[in-house]
Amino acid sequence: MKLTHFDKAGKARMVDVSAKKTTQREAVAAGSVCMKPTTMRLIKAGAFEKGDVLGVARIAGIMAAKKTSDLIPLCHPLNVASITVDFFFDEDKSRIDIKATVKITGLTGVEMEALVAVSATALTIYDMCKSADKGMVISDIMLLEKRGGKSGKFVRRPSAK
Amino acid sequence: MKLTHFDKAGKARMVDVSAKKTTQREAVAAGSVCMKPTTMRLIKAGAFEKGDVLGVARIAGIMAAKKTSDLIPLCHPLNVASITVDFFFDEDKSRIDIKATVKITGLTGVEMEALVAVSATALTIYDMCKSADKGMVISDIMLLEKRGGKSGKFVRRPSAK
Amino acid sequence: MKLTHFDKAGKARMVDVSAKKTTQREAVAAGSVCMKPTTMRLIKAGAFEKGDVLGVARIAGIMAAKKTSDLIPLCHPLNVASITVDFFFDEDKSRIDIKATVKITGLTGVEMEALVAVSATALTIYDMCKSADKGMVISDIMLLEKRGGKSGKFVRRPSAK
Amino acid sequence: MKLTHFDKAGKARMVDVSAKKTTQREAVAAGSVCMKPTTMRLIKAGAFEKGDVLGVARIAGIMAAKKTSDLIPLCHPLNVASITVDFFFDEDKSRIDIKATVKITGLTGVEMEALVAVSATALTIYDMCKSADKGMVISDIMLLEKRGGKSGKFVRRPSAK
Amino acid sequence: MKLTHFDKAGKARMVDVSAKKTTQREAVAAGSVCMKPTTMRLIKAGAFEKGDVLGVARIAGIMAAKKTSDLIPLCHPLNVASITVDFFFDEDKSRIDIKATVKITGLTGVEMEALVAVSATALTIYDMCKSADKGMVISDIMLLEKRGGKSGKFVRRPSAK
Amino acid sequence: MKLTHFDKAGKARMVDVSAKKTTQREAVAAGSVCMKPTTMRLIKAGAFEKGDVLGVARIAGIMAAKKTSDLIPLCHPLNVASITVDFFFDEDKSRIDIKATVKITGLTGVEMEALVAVSATALTIYDMCKSADKGMVISDIMLLEKRGGKSGKFVRRPSAK
Repeated sequence: MKLTHFDKAGKARMVDVSAKKTTQREAVAAGSVCMKPTTMRLIKAGAFEKGDVLGVARIAGIMAAKKTSDLIPLCHPLNVASITVDFFFDEDKSRIDIKATVKITGLTGVEMEALVAVSATALTIYDMCKSADKGMVISDIMLLEKRGGKSGKFVRRPSAK
Repeated sequence: MKLTHFDKAGKARMVDVSAKKTTQREAVAAGSVCMKPTTMRLIKAGAFEKGDVLGVARIAGIMAAKKTSDLIPLCHPLNVASITVDFFFDEDKSRIDIKATVKITGLTGVEMEALVAVSATALTIYDMCKSADKGMVISDIMLLEKRGGKSGKFVRRPSAK
Repeated sequence: MKLTHFDKAGKARMVDVSAKKTTQREAVAAGSVCMKPTTMRLIKAGAFEKGDVLGVARIAGIMAAKKTSDLIPLCHPLNVASITVDFFFDEDKSRIDIKATVKITGLTGVEMEALVAVSATALTIYDMCKSADKGMVISDIMLLEKRGGKSGKFVRRPSAK
Repeated sequence: MKLTHFDKAGKARMVDVSAKKTTQREAVAAGSVCMKPTTMRLIKAGAFEKGDVLGVARIAGIMAAKKTSDLIPLCHPLNVASITVDFFFDEDKSRIDIKATVKITGLTGVEMEALVAVSATALTIYDMCKSADKGMVISDIMLLEKRGGKSGKFVRRPSAK
Repeated sequence: MKLTHFDKAGKARMVDVSAKKTTQREAVAAGSVCMKPTTMRLIKAGAFEKGDVLGVARIAGIMAAKKTSDLIPLCHPLNVASITVDFFFDEDKSRIDIKATVKITGLTGVEMEALVAVSATALTIYDMCKSADKGMVISDIMLLEKRGGKSGKFVRRPSAK
Repeated sequence: MKLTHFDKAGKARMVDVSAKKTTQREAVAAGSVCMKPTTMRLIKAGAFEKGDVLGVARIAGIMAAKKTSDLIPLCHPLNVASITVDFFFDEDKSRIDIKATVKITGLTGVEMEALVAVSATALTIYDMCKSADKGMVISDIMLLEKRGGKSGKFVRRPSAK
C-alpha cells in the first residue's frame, strides 16, 4: 500500500489525472459543531429575527469549496458543477450537524471539496458565535459517500459514526 | 447576550475594531485526525523515507492561516507575526494531534487564524492519505488558549476535552 | 493637474504612502440596482420566506471589499477595521439602493474598498435574480463621503445625485 | 417564477449544472464612467504621452473576470476561453463607455464574467483618476447580449438604455 | 510577425481559444539557483535532518502553478492534470537546478504554468535561505519542451543553455 | 549558521516578528529577459504603436508583489507602502533589464516582494511574446539593495553581477 501523492522517491507531486475518464462524480461529507444550549438557541432565534448565522456560514462553505485547490497543496483545480450545504439541529447533543454535497463532471473526485465546504461552514459558525461561546468544538468531519470514478462507490458504514 | 457579528437589526457586519488597542495577542488551537493504525504507520515511515505527509500538511496549515479573512466572511484581514504548527502521535487512539499557535501585534485576536491553520493541516493529511484510508475522521478542533485584548485570557479547562 | 498613479514619465506605479500619517479614515459609497417591480417583490418576499438575496449580496460585498488590492491594480493592501453594507428599497423607481461604509486606522484612504463593496453587492443581486430578470441595470456607483487623511473631507453635494 | 439560486426551502445553493450541455457561449456587457471634461482630457492625453489609464483598467477588467467565481458567491468556477474589453469616448456626455465580451465552451453562461469585467474596469478608471476627480459616477452596467445554452439568446432592446 | 496578445489596434486581450482542439499537452521548464557552497551544504543537510528547504519549495512551486492565471494577466484559467517539480544538485557550479513538468488535457498549452512553477520554487529557496545567503541568484528560467496543440512540438536545442 | 525558517527540530515555521521594531524598510531587486533582437524590436515598437508589453508586465509585477505572502509559504502578509517597476533596454545583449523597488513601514523586510515583482514582470514579458520567441530566458534575478531593520543595509557588490 502506498500514498499516491508521493512518487517512488518520496517526493510530493500532483497525481497525474490526464488518463482518467470524465465521469459524473459526487461526494457527501459531514461534520458537527458542539456548543452550549444557549448558543444554539441564539442561532435558531437569529435565523428568523436577529441575524442569520447559518445563512452566512453556508455561503462561506460554498465559497471555500471553490477554493479547495488553493488550500490543499496537491488538489487539482476543478470546475465543480454544484455545491449544497445543509444543517440539522441535534438538540439532545446540543450540536449542529452540517452536510455538504458536491457534484462534478470531471477527471477526478470532489471528496476534498465536500470536506472543505463542511470545515469552512463549521469555522464560520464558530467565528460568528465566539463572542458568546469560545468553547465550541468542531468534530466528526468525515466523508459519508463518494460516487463515480475508477475507485467506485464509497459509503461510510453507519456504525462508523 | 448577543452575537457581535450582527447589528441590532440582525444584519451581518464586520465588527468595527478601529477603537481597539494595538496589543500583543496570541491564540492556540488544537485538533485531531483519527485513522487506521496502518495509515499512521505509513505517515510515520514517510516522514523519514518515502514522503513527508506532515511536512506538506504543516505548510498547508500555515498558508491557509494567512488566508483566514478570505475564507471566514466577517474576519478582519490581519498581518500575523508568527504561525507554528506541531504534531503529536497518539498511538493508543490511533490519531495525530495537531496544535497551531498564532501571534500578532494588532487590533484584534487571532483565534480564527489558529483554528483555520489546524483545519487546513488536518484536511491536507486527509487528502494525502485518502488513497489508503477514506474513513479518517477530523475531530476536536477547538480553541485551547487566547491571550491579549480587552476580553483577556481564555484557557480551556482540561475537563473540556 | 496630474494623475498620481503615474510618475513623470507616465509609468504606472503604486503611490508611495510611507510618509503619510496613520489616521482614522472612513469612506461611504453608494449605488443602485434597477429592476422590474416583480423582481423587487421576489427579493422582498425572499428575505423572509424563500431565500435571502440581500443577505448573500451583503456578504459578497464585505468579502470583495477585503480583496480590493487584489482587484484594483494600484491599490495598497490594507487592514480595514470595519465594513457595513445597507439596503434601501425605492419602490417608486423600482430599485434597491446600496450604501457601504468602510473604516480604517491607516496610511491611506478606503474609498476604493467602499466602492468595491457596493459593486460586488450589486453584481451579486444581479447574479441571484438573473434567472428572473436579465435586464437589471447597476447605476449611480459613487463616493458619498470621505473623512481623514491629508486631502481632508469630501462630501458629495446633494444635487450631484 | 422563482430564483434558481435558492432551493424550495429558501436555502442558497450553487445551481447544479452537471446535466447541462457543453456549448459555445458568449456574453457582452456594458457600463459607463461619467467624469469632468478635464478628467476625460487627462485620460485621452495620458493614453499617448503621460500614462495609460485605460490600458491598466483593461488589464484589471480581464483579471477580475477570471476571479468571478471568487467574488460572486454562487457563480461556478469556469475556464473562460476569451475576454476582451473595449472603450468608447462619449465627449458630449463626458463619459467613457466600456464594453466587455467573454466567450466559453462550457456548461454554463458567462454573463457574470462580462459584468465583472466591466465593473472592475470602471472601478480602476475611478481609482487612477480619483486624485483629480472624486465625483466620477459609474452607471449603466448591464447585459447587452447573451448567446448559447438552453435559455437561448438574449439581446437588450435599444430603448432599454 | 505579431504578438497574439494584442489585437490589430494594439489593445491587450485574452486570446480566444474557443475554436482550439482539446488535446493532451505537456510543458517542461527549467531554472537554477546559484548560491554559496555553504548554503548548498545547509540545504542538503536540512533535507535529511534539520529542515526540508526543497520539500517546502516544491510545494510552493506546485501551488503557484495552479495560480498562473491569477499572476499572468492574459493567461487562461486551466485545470492542470499534473505538476511535478524535481531538483538536481550541481556541486561544481554550486547551484540547484529545478525542473517542472506540467500536463493538461485542454484547449491551450501549459508553458506558463511550468515556468511559474520553476520561478516560485526558486523564489522559495531564496526566501528560506536568505538569512544565510542574500546574494543567491536565480537564472536560466526557460522552456525546455512543449508538446501538443496546433503549434506542435518545441524542444530547446542543447546549445541554447 | 542556521536557516531561520526552521526551528531546532527542523520544522518549518513562520518566523516570529512580533518583537521586531516598526521601521522604514526598502528593497531593490533586478532581473533580465534575454530574447531575439527581433522580439526586442517588437516590444519597443509595441510600446508606442501596436501593444504595450511592458505596460502590462509592469502591472503584473506590481500585482504579484502584493500577493507575495500567498506565493511564498513562510512569508509574512505585509501592507507594502510603494512598488515601482522600471525597464532598461540593453541592445548589445539583446535583453530587457527589470528593476523593482518596494517600500514599507513595518516589522519585516520586503526583499521577497521585490524579487516576486521582478519575477512576475519577467514571466509576463515571456507570456506576451512567446508566440514570437519561445526561447527567451529569464536570468539574474537577484537582490540589489536592502535598507532598514536589524540586519541593516545590504548592497550587492558590483562585481557580483
